[in-house]
Amino acid sequence: MAGYNLEAIEAAPLKEDVDIVIPTIRSLNFLEQWRPFLKHYHLIIVQDGDPSINIGVPEGYDYELYNRNDINRILGPRANCISYKDGGCRCFGFMVSKKKYIYTIDDDCFVANDPSGKEINVIAQHIKNLETPSTPHYFNTLYDPFRDGTDFVRGYPFSLREGVKTAISHGLWLNIPDYDAPTQLVKPRERNIRYVDAVMTIPKGVLYPMCGMNLAFNRELIGPAMYFGLMGEGQPISRYDDMWAGWAAKVVCDHLGFGVKTGLPYVWHSKASNPFVNLKKEHKGLHWQEDMVPFFQNLRLSKESDTAAKCYMELSNMTKEKLTEVDPYFEKLADAMVAWIEAWEELNPPVDGKDVKAR
Amino acid sequence: MAGYNLEAIEAAPLKEDVDIVIPTIRSLNFLEQWRPFLKHYHLIIVQDGDPSINIGVPEGYDYELYNRNDINRILGPRANCISYKDGGCRCFGFMVSKKKYIYTIDDDCFVANDPSGKEINVIAQHIKNLETPSTPHYFNTLYDPFRDGTDFVRGYPFSLREGVKTAISHGLWLNIPDYDAPTQLVKPRERNIRYVDAVMTIPKGVLYPMCGMNLAFNRELIGPAMYFGLMGEGQPISRYDDMWAGWAAKVVCDHLGFGVKTGLPYVWHSKASNPFVNLKKEHKGLHWQEDMVPFFQNLRLSKESDTAAKCYMELSNMTKEKLTEVDPYFEKLADAMVAWIEAWEELNPPVDGKDVKAR
Repeated sequence: MAGYNLEAIEAAPLKEDVDIVIPTIRSLNFLEQWRPFLKHYHLIIVQDGDPSINIGVPEGYDYELYNRNDINRILGPRANCISYKDGGCRCFGFMVSKKKYIYTIDDDCFVANDPSGKEINVIAQHIKNLETPSTPHYFNTLYDPFRDGTDFVRGYPFSLREGVKTAISHGLWLNIPDYDAPTQLVKPRERNIRYVDAVMTIPKGVLYPMCGMNLAFNRELIGPAMYFGLMGEGQPISRYDDMWAGWAAKVVCDHLGFGVKTGLPYVWHSKASNPFVNLKKEHKGLHWQEDMVPFFQNLRLSKESDTAAKCYMELSNMTKEKLTEVDPYFEKLADAMVAWIEAWEELNPPVDGKDVKAR
Repeated sequence: MAGYNLEAIEAAPLKEDVDIVIPTIRSLNFLEQWRPFLKHYHLIIVQDGDPSINIGVPEGYDYELYNRNDINRILGPRANCISYKDGGCRCFGFMVSKKKYIYTIDDDCFVANDPSGKEINVIAQHIKNLETPSTPHYFNTLYDPFRDGTDFVRGYPFSLREGVKTAISHGLWLNIPDYDAPTQLVKPRERNIRYVDAVMTIPKGVLYPMCGMNLAFNRELIGPAMYFGLMGEGQPISRYDDMWAGWAAKVVCDHLGFGVKTGLPYVWHSKASNPFVNLKKEHKGLHWQEDMVPFFQNLRLSKESDTAAKCYMELSNMTKEKLTEVDPYFEKLADAMVAWIEAWEELNPPVDGKDVKAR
């Protein structure tokens, strides 16, 4: 581990710097189990669906809660860019936060245990991942060189060992794996029981499927690119909110020179969603991803786009130009991307030194 | 695990299809411990250093042994392309083999145990890695989707799930990590105690430091690019034999559409080499890798190079053209690369259907 005091990071969970964003349509009883780890943090709860339902938040948590009426009031005509009846609504929470780091988690995820039986402190691990550099330019075969007990191996150029700032920490799931509906249908009993004790950087130029269940990121570096798209009610697609955000945020990170890590920490994912419902929600996405992935793989952002917000505006133009031929939906999505950035900038006016530019 | 019968692969260790290549200057007593796993396989032993020394091979092993006199006799004037007093001499064994798969191991590596205490069958794991496809075009967050108990996650395009043929399986090391001399000096007591239960594809376009300690590959697909360079006595550089082979083989795999995996299986690496001796051997490499890595990252092979041998000849030209300005040594290396391919083709005349072309 090259020069970072991980114990100090663990001891100081940066509670003033982290907001926890939770989208929900039901009670938040799952927070009872999380209390030892999450009680110190401020929650931003985004209530999806019927605003008149009373969401139960366990006592003792410090939180703010936004329902659809609040979103409409705060964003006005731009509120349309926030998905309805879809977990993608969580990105509203990213926008109203003022913190450096966001951790977002689904309400069917619980505390997992490591192989020794110890409960996993997800926040501590995500913060370690985010506070230590990434290494996107060359693969380290012993994985994250900034973890305790490891380092860069022989043959790793010294000029690349400083690494780059980490923008995203993508955590994984034990028990129910994050499969699409066809795979769920084919393998209804498959459970993820393999604890892979690794964190690694996803190399520059490589895309991955980002899942929003257990995800942390640096809002200052990448927040504006963490838009979860236009999904759910009134849209032809669902269950691709996190995928869209992941692809977009990865190309923006690659362009701006930020890193993306995946691996630890694990959560315990308790409940497989209904594969038939999922199939209906995602069937267009299953088809469209064959165009969306090459779109993101092949695009090149311009030098002028030197902040996440500018990159995202450019991405909106490209989406309209290249993906509308796949389906007219993408024109609507491209417009929503613009509305998202406009709303982001209204709620987060650039402050000197806060509008983070590339290197 | 998508459609492959891994148990059948494990039960049939393909003993007719695998040669084990071992470079050594001393006794091969380490093979005693490996007996349960390696006794079924044919060994190719490449004796480095003084040919008059009698290498002890444990009884019961089926082997052929080549010393420097044999190499000189078989390769004639081209024998100069095989390193002397350097582990890189092992590549002579790759050339004289007639098998599909090579497994090469260092004589200070022993059987490791998995976290349950079970002894790891390295050959079985390498063969699983090689016989199942790689996925270099997109990252799967649950790692190798062809392992038992896992699959492609949500958001993985279906068009990419067939994968590509795997050419290289790079295994890791518990106990003594493969550090360079400066890192050895700074962290003399660091031991790798983390068993990461994963196999993964190194994505297309991404380079990694390939270590020759515990390495398997498909000779038919990538053999001619597995040249371990010109190192050791009479050369200005050592300890970069496997790195050179790894960088070259990776760009050739990327070009031909083959995959490279890293991760399991682990061996137990018993003995740290002397860091001061290593520093002397590798100090030029530590400097030159700052040019070698960008050289391999930026080169583009031509369409006409549609076999590993043709790619390697083109790479030799590029080496001469681009790296000779770093040091005149690279001109000598480029010439040796040509000699290597000529010798390879003489010993392995192309047979219809055996000269493996890209896709």
